[in-house]
Amino acid sequence: MTGLSRPTITQRIDQLLELGLIAPVEDAASTGGRPSSQIAFNPRARVVLAADLGALHTRVAVTDLDGVLLAEASSPHDIAEGPEAAIDWILQSAKSLLPDLDYLPEQIAGIGIGVPGPVEFSTGRPINPPIMPGWDRFDIPSAIRTQIDAPVLVDNDVNIMALGELSTSWPDVTDLIFVKVATGIGAGVISGGTLRRGANGAAGDIGHVALARAADTPCPCGNRGCIEAVASGRALARALSTPERQLKRPSEVVALAKSGDVEAIQAIRQAGRDIGEVLTSCVSLMNPSTIVIGGTMAQAAEHLVAGVREVVYARSIPLSTEHLTIAPSRAAANAAILGAAQLAIDTALSPERIAAALSG
Amino acid sequence: MTGLSRPTITQRIDQLLELGLIAPVEDAASTGGRPSSQIAFNPRARVVLAADLGALHTRVAVTDLDGVLLAEASSPHDIAEGPEAAIDWILQSAKSLLPDLDYLPEQIAGIGIGVPGPVEFSTGRPINPPIMPGWDRFDIPSAIRTQIDAPVLVDNDVNIMALGELSTSWPDVTDLIFVKVATGIGAGVISGGTLRRGANGAAGDIGHVALARAADTPCPCGNRGCIEAVASGRALARALSTPERQLKRPSEVVALAKSGDVEAIQAIRQAGRDIGEVLTSCVSLMNPSTIVIGGTMAQAAEHLVAGVREVVYARSIPLSTEHLTIAPSRAAANAAILGAAQLAIDTALSPERIAAALSG
Repeated sequence: MTGLSRPTITQRIDQLLELGLIAPVEDAASTGGRPSSQIAFNPRARVVLAADLGALHTRVAVTDLDGVLLAEASSPHDIAEGPEAAIDWILQSAKSLLPDLDYLPEQIAGIGIGVPGPVEFSTGRPINPPIMPGWDRFDIPSAIRTQIDAPVLVDNDVNIMALGELSTSWPDVTDLIFVKVATGIGAGVISGGTLRRGANGAAGDIGHVALARAADTPCPCGNRGCIEAVASGRALARALSTPERQLKRPSEVVALAKSGDVEAIQAIRQAGRDIGEVLTSCVSLMNPSTIVIGGTMAQAAEHLVAGVREVVYARSIPLSTEHLTIAPSRAAANAAILGAAQLAIDTALSPERIAAALSG
Repeated sequence: MTGLSRPTITQRIDQLLELGLIAPVEDAASTGGRPSSQIAFNPRARVVLAADLGALHTRVAVTDLDGVLLAEASSPHDIAEGPEAAIDWILQSAKSLLPDLDYLPEQIAGIGIGVPGPVEFSTGRPINPPIMPGWDRFDIPSAIRTQIDAPVLVDNDVNIMALGELSTSWPDVTDLIFVKVATGIGAGVISGGTLRRGANGAAGDIGHVALARAADTPCPCGNRGCIEAVASGRALARALSTPERQLKRPSEVVALAKSGDVEAIQAIRQAGRDIGEVLTSCVSLMNPSTIVIGGTMAQAAEHLVAGVREVVYARSIPLSTEHLTIAPSRAAANAAILGAAQLAIDTALSPERIAAALSG
């Protein structure tokens, strides 16, 4: 099947066994034929480090090479304190988590980090991130690699959520759009099984698409009528605030809806319709089989997703929606941290890295 | 660099020489060091057959493995006559073109075909094509392969135009959206260097995205307000028709604009703005570096592209448009036929096909 000769395969298997990346399968069931040695990928040969940096909260985890969570730590942390403090906390967490798992820092095969802002993926530098003062063009991989010798991958939070959602919950899906609806609105685009970042890493940045209904609403981006200005968690909190009841965060909007407040439920449903309007263009362009709605506002998924479905199914061509699934996130609060792990795993197990390990 | 041993490389080069896919370079300039044999890809080792089936016109071409046009034939042909007649014409054309080029049918490495309707790419069958009566689910590859033993690839006309535009005119671009504006409106999406077909092959089908301005205009698709209902060549021809002047085809709209008719120029400019509105969502989602406007209406590119630019640059986030090029098609009338050739070449030179040829 591989087109490789028997001696070549034997040699490579021996090398992979030596690296520990594969191991003999002990309980292989006999198939009745002549006994053959069975081997399998060994996901515990190494670990990866995953970090999810939010605006006010940081989470660090260690997973195996299958992306299974082995240990984690989290802590309130203001991203505005700048990169040194955050990176220091990531490194300290790694040092405190690894010993209990019986792994050494040298066994870290890769590090994946998600940040709440745009990133130049090829260099791992945030680019003009609006809520990350002090981080603009900061070289995150170099800072990490002064302490840990492993590949460091950095991407924005929505992209890693899309990766985490795909790898944990939709193993057979190749075309998926993950929409994060939280304080803002953004998307991660999986096409042909791979996350698409576009020419400048800005793919998925759908928060400022114009909505006819919102034409008069100003947006902090400088334009008017952006979807984020009317359908984001921040916009809903503002719209639902009264002199007696000041809402500040998306989670407060969700809580209000869960308490049965009709106005909040109607507003979330309408936000779903508005987001659905933008998504019809996305469905027409990319023909995904799956749209996943995640982020804080997806905790009110029954109302939000209903609004999205209402518009997308009404407005898209039948060929695009015949087999289209629109669902709330399954990975939910774990999407980001598991996606950061997956980012590291994909690089650690890439043919290039394996070839380098074999020849070294 | 390849990680392969010297004997393996020597053996494979000998096999490729035998197949004729590579050849010694005769005029290799000496670098002053010890003489080494230089070899290069031989694009004339084989040919591919390309066919562009339009609604009323069919074109067949023979190209080399670099996609250079060697010979072609074209003829008026009504696609509604059904598949047997069209395929017969393709096969007859091939038989008459090859002898003059000194190639045998056995030297055809692949066949690429574009059709004016949706196609299930994996099987090469048109699926519910609106303007191709008799073609629904017809197995085009099998019909061709009764006569020519080579891989047959079939795709819709917009996808092959995107491939042709990319391969001939934008060699360094990896993220490109090709928009065909003719009787209808459709797009081909290149992301990460590869054409993206989506989950059902419907990617790029943007003709029925809703436009607020057009909310009251009915579209043959059953919805209202589709972009195609107000900004396509067909819609413009209808809008510019008067009792004295009946326009039927996009080319008549272009001719009217070229004659200096202010109403036609204004209408094309507004169509560009409308298409630009849909494209802002596409830019936000996929972050292409290049948008190409092709199809008949792009013959009035100065007005059409101006309208697209006006809206896309005004409405998109700066990171997405900083390096965004919006340009009329360079491959123009050759985009489709050269894209059909490229589709065949990509498959003929795929690692799988080469490996099969080497082992056979």
